[in-house]
Amino acid sequence: MSFSTLLNLLGFLNLILAGTMVLPLLVNWIYGEPHTRGFLLSIAATALSGLFMMLIFKRSSRELTHRDGFAIVALGWINAAFFGALPYLFTGSLASLTDACFEAASGFTTTGSTIFTDIQKHPYSVLFWRNLTQWLGGMGIILLSLAILPFLGVGGMQLYRAEVPGPTTDKLRPRIAQTARILWEVYVLFSAAEVLTLLLGGMNLFDALCHTFSTMATGGFSPKNQSIEFYQSPFLEYAITFFMFLAGANFALHYRFLKGNVKVFWRDTEFCFYTSVVLLATLFISLNLWLSIQKEFFQAFRLAIFQVVSILTTTGFSTADFENWPFFSQYLLFTLMFIGGCAGSTGGAIKCVRIYILLKQGFQELRKLIHPRAVLPVKLGGKVISPDTLSGIWGLFFLYLFIFAVASLALSLLGSDLLTSISAVAATLGNVGPGLGTVGPAENFAHLSIPAKWILTACMLLGRLEIYTLLVLLIPEFWKK
Amino acid sequence: MSFSTLLNLLGFLNLILAGTMVLPLLVNWIYGEPHTRGFLLSIAATALSGLFMMLIFKRSSRELTHRDGFAIVALGWINAAFFGALPYLFTGSLASLTDACFEAASGFTTTGSTIFTDIQKHPYSVLFWRNLTQWLGGMGIILLSLAILPFLGVGGMQLYRAEVPGPTTDKLRPRIAQTARILWEVYVLFSAAEVLTLLLGGMNLFDALCHTFSTMATGGFSPKNQSIEFYQSPFLEYAITFFMFLAGANFALHYRFLKGNVKVFWRDTEFCFYTSVVLLATLFISLNLWLSIQKEFFQAFRLAIFQVVSILTTTGFSTADFENWPFFSQYLLFTLMFIGGCAGSTGGAIKCVRIYILLKQGFQELRKLIHPRAVLPVKLGGKVISPDTLSGIWGLFFLYLFIFAVASLALSLLGSDLLTSISAVAATLGNVGPGLGTVGPAENFAHLSIPAKWILTACMLLGRLEIYTLLVLLIPEFWKK
Repeated sequence: MSFSTLLNLLGFLNLILAGTMVLPLLVNWIYGEPHTRGFLLSIAATALSGLFMMLIFKRSSRELTHRDGFAIVALGWINAAFFGALPYLFTGSLASLTDACFEAASGFTTTGSTIFTDIQKHPYSVLFWRNLTQWLGGMGIILLSLAILPFLGVGGMQLYRAEVPGPTTDKLRPRIAQTARILWEVYVLFSAAEVLTLLLGGMNLFDALCHTFSTMATGGFSPKNQSIEFYQSPFLEYAITFFMFLAGANFALHYRFLKGNVKVFWRDTEFCFYTSVVLLATLFISLNLWLSIQKEFFQAFRLAIFQVVSILTTTGFSTADFENWPFFSQYLLFTLMFIGGCAGSTGGAIKCVRIYILLKQGFQELRKLIHPRAVLPVKLGGKVISPDTLSGIWGLFFLYLFIFAVASLALSLLGSDLLTSISAVAATLGNVGPGLGTVGPAENFAHLSIPAKWILTACMLLGRLEIYTLLVLLIPEFWKK
Repeated sequence: MSFSTLLNLLGFLNLILAGTMVLPLLVNWIYGEPHTRGFLLSIAATALSGLFMMLIFKRSSRELTHRDGFAIVALGWINAAFFGALPYLFTGSLASLTDACFEAASGFTTTGSTIFTDIQKHPYSVLFWRNLTQWLGGMGIILLSLAILPFLGVGGMQLYRAEVPGPTTDKLRPRIAQTARILWEVYVLFSAAEVLTLLLGGMNLFDALCHTFSTMATGGFSPKNQSIEFYQSPFLEYAITFFMFLAGANFALHYRFLKGNVKVFWRDTEFCFYTSVVLLATLFISLNLWLSIQKEFFQAFRLAIFQVVSILTTTGFSTADFENWPFFSQYLLFTLMFIGGCAGSTGGAIKCVRIYILLKQGFQELRKLIHPRAVLPVKLGGKVISPDTLSGIWGLFFLYLFIFAVASLALSLLGSDLLTSISAVAATLGNVGPGLGTVGPAENFAHLSIPAKWILTACMLLGRLEIYTLLVLLIPEFWKK
């Protein structure tokens, strides 16, 4: 472990972060808001700490190791959540460090759980920063899941080692740089397309930018109290549903599709599984709403598909307070929180590919009982999955549920009712955003106690970093030579 | 698959079942109850169907196969749930087939969820039958988990293939017979000890027998509306806690202990894990009750240890309506419903050994990330667990949760609230008994709709037969030559 390189890189990250804070400062000027001092202070603190770290600690010349990778990723995100909190504090939007760090972590991890009780009373500049953190976090996640995790071997992500064409060296850096460029091009292209679509649907430029930031990152922050319900526009709802769906799919597929391989989606097992989950859940919820609340069928369908895609992709936008829906619909949405988007997307939670493989192996075991001597490997898209990859997936699945149980028990100990405890943890660990109970889509996380907020902040980071990447830092062995 | 042998054996099972129905008939006479006709009808129907099946279908002379094993176990339990329902119907205790089958399945699977709204208004003979079904089911389960499942290779139960000394042939029958005799001796011995202890504590003979039946089977049926709370006796509570704890431990260990190997418990990893879970959960709940409801500490401790052992071992007795306890205690009890007792006990749910192994592998994966090239096998008590055993455990764990999700979604579709849906399924799939919400320890399952009752009956059987044993019968491949 090269601490010097690590701190130098974190310093560099802070310089970039300070650079991005210039954008909300511009928004502050455009709208004539009085927060110039707050943003300048944030920029100065972030940039100076970055410069300080880069000057004091030098990058060593040797190639980065495996363990450096873990440390950089995990500390990078924690660092961003801390410095990203400064604009909230210095503009006075949030008064406590706990709240500001919660909001910043919720941004960079693209969760979308919020402390803001009356969103629209906050200045445009702060709302812009809030949504920008999601877009930046989303960028980071694509890079993480398709370029870094496959090499670190986290939770079966070895599956994606060969997804993106590029030099086949095992060295981390050249590959990461190339993969990153390709994927970010797609990310920026889709973002531009969404901004145009939303403008076309009648949204103003500020709202279009903010919503695009949080859609493409499957984040879910909205500058409106009522989220997408505010606009009462079927066109905007369908448009955002479409872009959420894209953001929840593997960006390596998008890249290949744009390169002309039009059949790539339907040949991808995970994408087909993801689409099936969306269609099935939408069908069930549409029928449930139609038959029990007696809305018109197409209205029920529109509400259902929006909410299913929003929760499954772990975005968290809402067009209705689904806490008023029948129990079945609520509960189905709750289970979707655990599934999440595709690997290589900006979506969170366990991810479709893992659920698909676990399901397949679960039923494969049945066949093994019938043919005890047969060798029945688990395959994905015709390829056999290695035992190492499988055990990575199992391990992640179990730890995910274990952390879910421990964290929600801790929340209930702090006084939350059962529904709030389990849904708040499911929503933050899965990077979804809103839960049920007292943290539903029409409510927020402001009323929770300080320890509860820190537990949920940790859940957001654990979920975003696929548990292992963060947990591994807590093992003493990790830091030994 | 030899259908003829299968049906012949089921017929034989019915003869035994009819034989056991003579006992409640005796109780009926002793208490001068008017249900002679009801029991005679039940005995006749069960015995005649058994004779009929044995006369029509002949046992083939060849050795039983693997698949025969599955079919006999699964159909045996379903058959018992059906014929065991007759006494409820013919004595008029329960009017509908759904309710009677639910109650009988709850008995034979040692679940303990009940349809009876006012238990004490039912005749002694029926209550005796109700508890006797649990004791018989418990016998069957010990046989199943230590003698049959290890050979069928279900859910990692291969671990127990060498647990009990005996001839090392791979043929099913001689081994099963020998193992069964040894384990049943222990079961009967412990039962006798419990009856004596309860009599000593002031319980009358009828209550002592009934409670022993459901304690040793970790079933949880009680002839009293208030369950063990009725007696208001710390001695009886601690005594039953002790025997529930024994029933939730591996009977192969008990056998070895009785043979003079006194250290066997502390050398068994699963037993140590099981004990740790009991102690930790008791500690947390005692403190939670003490600090929030302000009971005296030792009173809180007594309530806590009783309820923890009752739920963890999946017995389901209660000494308090834990729905009035703080959220944390309720939720901790709910999570215990998934863990369950030790393998080779009469307890249900996922079982301690599996949870321990999954936990170990989850954290093992972390070490793998630090040492990517190291070979780090998962061990239990110093022995490496084979990949086949591991994947059986993973598969079972995932299918358990999958069925939990699907069944509880179905229950919510039928109109139950979230807490009732998830806890009713957790309680039946784990063979625990009472849940939370409208199926709490002070309530019952009578108010649920007919389809909901059938879903929960299926959950009891699935849970009891370790999912696979029942599910495998639904695969067409299973029935092919």
